[in-house]
Amino acid sequence: MIKTAILGATGIVGQQFVAALDGHPWFKIENLLTSPRSAGKRYDEALRNANTGASEWFCDSSLPHSTGEIVTQDSSEFDPSKVDLVFSALESEQAKSLEPAYAKHTPIVSTASAFRYEPDTPIIIPGVNNGHAEALTIQRERRAWKGFIVPIPNCTTTGLAISLKPLHVDYVVEAVVMTSMQAVSGAGRSAGVLALDITDNIIPFIPGEEAKVERETCKILGDFRETFSPADIKISCTCTRVDVREGHTEAVYVQTKERCTANEAKESMRRFSRSLAELDLPSAPPELLLVHEDSHRPQPRLDRDTNNGMTTTVGRLREDQVLGGVKYVLVSHNTKMGAAKGAVLVAELLHRKGWLQRR
Amino acid sequence: MIKTAILGATGIVGQQFVAALDGHPWFKIENLLTSPRSAGKRYDEALRNANTGASEWFCDSSLPHSTGEIVTQDSSEFDPSKVDLVFSALESEQAKSLEPAYAKHTPIVSTASAFRYEPDTPIIIPGVNNGHAEALTIQRERRAWKGFIVPIPNCTTTGLAISLKPLHVDYVVEAVVMTSMQAVSGAGRSAGVLALDITDNIIPFIPGEEAKVERETCKILGDFRETFSPADIKISCTCTRVDVREGHTEAVYVQTKERCTANEAKESMRRFSRSLAELDLPSAPPELLLVHEDSHRPQPRLDRDTNNGMTTTVGRLREDQVLGGVKYVLVSHNTKMGAAKGAVLVAELLHRKGWLQRR
Amino acid sequence: MIKTAILGATGIVGQQFVAALDGHPWFKIENLLTSPRSAGKRYDEALRNANTGASEWFCDSSLPHSTGEIVTQDSSEFDPSKVDLVFSALESEQAKSLEPAYAKHTPIVSTASAFRYEPDTPIIIPGVNNGHAEALTIQRERRAWKGFIVPIPNCTTTGLAISLKPLHVDYVVEAVVMTSMQAVSGAGRSAGVLALDITDNIIPFIPGEEAKVERETCKILGDFRETFSPADIKISCTCTRVDVREGHTEAVYVQTKERCTANEAKESMRRFSRSLAELDLPSAPPELLLVHEDSHRPQPRLDRDTNNGMTTTVGRLREDQVLGGVKYVLVSHNTKMGAAKGAVLVAELLHRKGWLQRR
Amino acid sequence: MIKTAILGATGIVGQQFVAALDGHPWFKIENLLTSPRSAGKRYDEALRNANTGASEWFCDSSLPHSTGEIVTQDSSEFDPSKVDLVFSALESEQAKSLEPAYAKHTPIVSTASAFRYEPDTPIIIPGVNNGHAEALTIQRERRAWKGFIVPIPNCTTTGLAISLKPLHVDYVVEAVVMTSMQAVSGAGRSAGVLALDITDNIIPFIPGEEAKVERETCKILGDFRETFSPADIKISCTCTRVDVREGHTEAVYVQTKERCTANEAKESMRRFSRSLAELDLPSAPPELLLVHEDSHRPQPRLDRDTNNGMTTTVGRLREDQVLGGVKYVLVSHNTKMGAAKGAVLVAELLHRKGWLQRR
Repeated sequence: MIKTAILGATGIVGQQFVAALDGHPWFKIENLLTSPRSAGKRYDEALRNANTGASEWFCDSSLPHSTGEIVTQDSSEFDPSKVDLVFSALESEQAKSLEPAYAKHTPIVSTASAFRYEPDTPIIIPGVNNGHAEALTIQRERRAWKGFIVPIPNCTTTGLAISLKPLHVDYVVEAVVMTSMQAVSGAGRSAGVLALDITDNIIPFIPGEEAKVERETCKILGDFRETFSPADIKISCTCTRVDVREGHTEAVYVQTKERCTANEAKESMRRFSRSLAELDLPSAPPELLLVHEDSHRPQPRLDRDTNNGMTTTVGRLREDQVLGGVKYVLVSHNTKMGAAKGAVLVAELLHRKGWLQRR
Repeated sequence: MIKTAILGATGIVGQQFVAALDGHPWFKIENLLTSPRSAGKRYDEALRNANTGASEWFCDSSLPHSTGEIVTQDSSEFDPSKVDLVFSALESEQAKSLEPAYAKHTPIVSTASAFRYEPDTPIIIPGVNNGHAEALTIQRERRAWKGFIVPIPNCTTTGLAISLKPLHVDYVVEAVVMTSMQAVSGAGRSAGVLALDITDNIIPFIPGEEAKVERETCKILGDFRETFSPADIKISCTCTRVDVREGHTEAVYVQTKERCTANEAKESMRRFSRSLAELDLPSAPPELLLVHEDSHRPQPRLDRDTNNGMTTTVGRLREDQVLGGVKYVLVSHNTKMGAAKGAVLVAELLHRKGWLQRR
Repeated sequence: MIKTAILGATGIVGQQFVAALDGHPWFKIENLLTSPRSAGKRYDEALRNANTGASEWFCDSSLPHSTGEIVTQDSSEFDPSKVDLVFSALESEQAKSLEPAYAKHTPIVSTASAFRYEPDTPIIIPGVNNGHAEALTIQRERRAWKGFIVPIPNCTTTGLAISLKPLHVDYVVEAVVMTSMQAVSGAGRSAGVLALDITDNIIPFIPGEEAKVERETCKILGDFRETFSPADIKISCTCTRVDVREGHTEAVYVQTKERCTANEAKESMRRFSRSLAELDLPSAPPELLLVHEDSHRPQPRLDRDTNNGMTTTVGRLREDQVLGGVKYVLVSHNTKMGAAKGAVLVAELLHRKGWLQRR
Repeated sequence: MIKTAILGATGIVGQQFVAALDGHPWFKIENLLTSPRSAGKRYDEALRNANTGASEWFCDSSLPHSTGEIVTQDSSEFDPSKVDLVFSALESEQAKSLEPAYAKHTPIVSTASAFRYEPDTPIIIPGVNNGHAEALTIQRERRAWKGFIVPIPNCTTTGLAISLKPLHVDYVVEAVVMTSMQAVSGAGRSAGVLALDITDNIIPFIPGEEAKVERETCKILGDFRETFSPADIKISCTCTRVDVREGHTEAVYVQTKERCTANEAKESMRRFSRSLAELDLPSAPPELLLVHEDSHRPQPRLDRDTNNGMTTTVGRLREDQVLGGVKYVLVSHNTKMGAAKGAVLVAELLHRKGWLQRR
């Protein structure tokens, strides 16, 4: 078994890593790392609200008993060389300092945005840009790291990049207009969306989100040969927040260089959907992408959990008169494929490709 | 006072006409017209649920006592020449047969879509295309009507057309991509959206809606000189339903022929916003269009009721890299400016311009 | 395998029976019975919306392919003697005439209220009042039926009766005050709760509901010896509707004859919780009743699906100063244990006890 | 004009005081008092989010321009003798130290709970227990204060106490069972309810709330003659949180010493409803209590804003078989009558009764 540690283990994303790794066939949680304040307690105790004593374990599945017993450690004092792999659920500010310190010794797969835009750092979505892992050789050399850092994309990027990939391969995507209707879970818990603000409402702005989606999508769909060449796609987004718990919905309009009909686009997506299956990764869905014919789909409540939240569902695929390509609606699970479970899938890919080693 | 009758008076849109005309300085409700089943009762009795006896008056304001006392009449037997103006809240199927029969004698302003696409029928938004009323001369001649039919647009078209108008005048709009997040009230009550279906969810399809918006927007922004020349604007929409009670939100991306900056677009909208004020119509808002600088606006709950639901609010106006123009988010009240109150405003415009006559 | 037919198969409760019987080890769906209008079509075709062609299968699990192929039959012409058991998902009015006609030949387990209050008809909750099945001997004799009718209770009664049972056995319940906060799914789809009415709102009245709960609870907790002696419990309810999709929440205050502390009440409930397990019924949950210590539980979204929606969860159990007994909050899944899956559990009990026979 | 200052002016309750005092005929905002961190800025600037620069003024009405210009002052350094009256919107912890320091010099009306349970401190609801103001003479003497502290009750107590008052006067209330369904705004913003937690859900516990309601209701309905004698009413509550923005709903069951029918109870409430009107206070509603006959009322969305949120609405009033009195449902606006506007009404009462003086 690969020994893993989780950075930021008490936060909501850290908890999702704990849940995602429960019973994992390859990865074993060895250490749970926290701020000094929470360190030195059993994990289940560290999750208790200091005032009320109530457990603040927020995942739907229950906290595995044996994980609850692990005594948390101060992440600033932990020796990362004791584990084979670190999953980082840190906030971006913290990630900037702590992840490189860890990466000197150990591979990291991170949900933080801190390193996404570094020129030697790939943002990997398995099945979409597996080859970008090659950048890690350069990252290691340049930074003199034994480990490495692989961030996953922003949760709003994930479904968009997956759905565009087959169209880009088959027809060359030139421009994208995208309006998102994002779930409240995307804002996390510490600065989460108040019911007071979103009930019977929409919030039309998510600071920083649009720029992330535009930049990350081009990087992911671009090439890596020695350096990254982002895909030459113009992307324009409006990211909004709606009163949906889980599952981001996106209305996407695509301009392609080669003309493609709606049926050709569906065909392209369906061919692509099984691209990941052959690698036989434990968390990989049978289909990365599922195309609905029912025009009332996808709906976040009905479709977000397709294949345990690892599949992006697409529907309403039709031709677009303005951009001259196709348009569609997609749903992608922001806290599963778009967060911890997606990061575990990346680690599985890296392991399959030989980037991880047992000590 | 102009004597008016309301067709379809017991339905939810009919009720909104009743509420909109309460205390109106120019228009007086003379008759409330219903299906044979509801006819011959006091209006307040006709609104009672047959099983429970509960009142099914659904407007927020209370039913004016004197209107509640009006005895309803069977619309198939009513003589329209008794009134100066008819407001029609009929469903489209019924409107197809009943509105022309009425229009032989009397002007009609209608929320139904039945006549919107007729070549001799204007879809009027006051302040946007007042001049289209000229088509009524041709409509009357061609059909040998003493009255006429003026439909208002679909509630999703209204805010879009209002926001595009200044840009089209100043910079020539060539293409529009629009994703709507529409309120549940837009589906009405008889086939209304179930909480079961929309709580924690989005429905990505509203049958027929996208085609209506595309067609109506071009007609409204087009010219009328003897015949209608729809504006030459490519429009691509995705219309979705979200769990918001009132107020449609739309993310709009615009391609303009003449380049315009975000500031120029705001300036254009702000100049236009007072275009209607000079006519001094009772229901006209001081601003047709209100441009927010706060990037968290507009929000449907906060902004839908601006100027009693008659103002379209715009925010997040910024330049767009894909279409080469600007993009923004708008909120428009679908059951106020987008329905009965919007129709009353049209009637006010027609009256001001001399199209209505007291008998 | 026991051959079963479903009455009212295309409605939402009928669909839930189809889902509940998928892969059932004892019961096999032989016939799907509908109104004449839907009869004679493949079941999957009968579920299509006549206008849009969209499937109106509303269960979360997908429609089993082989069931979709069954050709529906007109329930008014079906010969019930062809099957061993009928599940009825009829509306109450229809049930009044159709269920007795069927019961002449075949046992029926029904979600309809039509026969609940008949003096020869038991309302059965497995684990709570199994012995009431004895009334069926009298029902058959008196009515000269080869079959019988067993209705399940109203979905709001189910959790209340289950939670009261151990207290009634151990301490004698004398009075109950209960306020319910019921899910919108309880209203079904045909007269379902509109999002327009319940978003940001509570509806404080559900016609008929309170009387049903009061009457059924006493019948279920009462004795049957030749005739039914309802339990002598005063019950006072206020039933409200809230914006929750699934899972009824009830705040319950109980007066007991014998004094009981909060801990004794919990102990009583926990002892009772496994009362059904020994019968080893396929749909029976390991615990009928689950008592939480965390005072933030139960919550409908977190707890409704405990043991596939078959367990009633209780929390906040504490002593009550007004009634002199205990008070608590419960959550019970209204469309699982409270509807089709609950009815299947009743049929399993009846089968285990020898009331069903293969032909 | 009475000169007032607001303690805790930048918080949400402080903002509501600002909104409630806008255009007030008797009270003028002279000073806005904040923590040292926010002090020394224009009020509108102090409300800006430090990171985003967005205004965090959260009231529905807009911030009055002239109030926005007031420069905030550090509450720990402010001289309270400069004003005639202080409204305190402090959190309870802060109130414990700061309110007494202010009360040495100046009268305070407070939404904080800090002093509610002091034996020399009245909790006043105008129209319900005006006479309790007499306790202020003792409070001043005992504490050697020139000013005084009058807290208003918890927002869940307010509607309950108002609805019980006429029944207590006319029939003597002996016991009350109450289940609340409370709005998310009741939790405020700093530790507000996340949409993630309440969408499609109910939270069955609000720490501390039930004890507050039980204790405060007895104090308010009790007598004051030299000391407080709380009413001898047994009260048992379950307080829950639901996905409603504003307006607490409560299902109430009442035991009365003298038997009363439903009609007598309604009559009692209606007689009482105008008890406050004769004092002619600017914020007083024409009816403190409004009794609906429509059994679908009250609903929080429809009824919370009755008379600007100052009226408690009651419906479903019927006899109760368990407690032997009556039961009903009420809606009360938690952030209007239940918070700042309710506190302003208390100040108006105190002024009318001569407890405030201009300096």
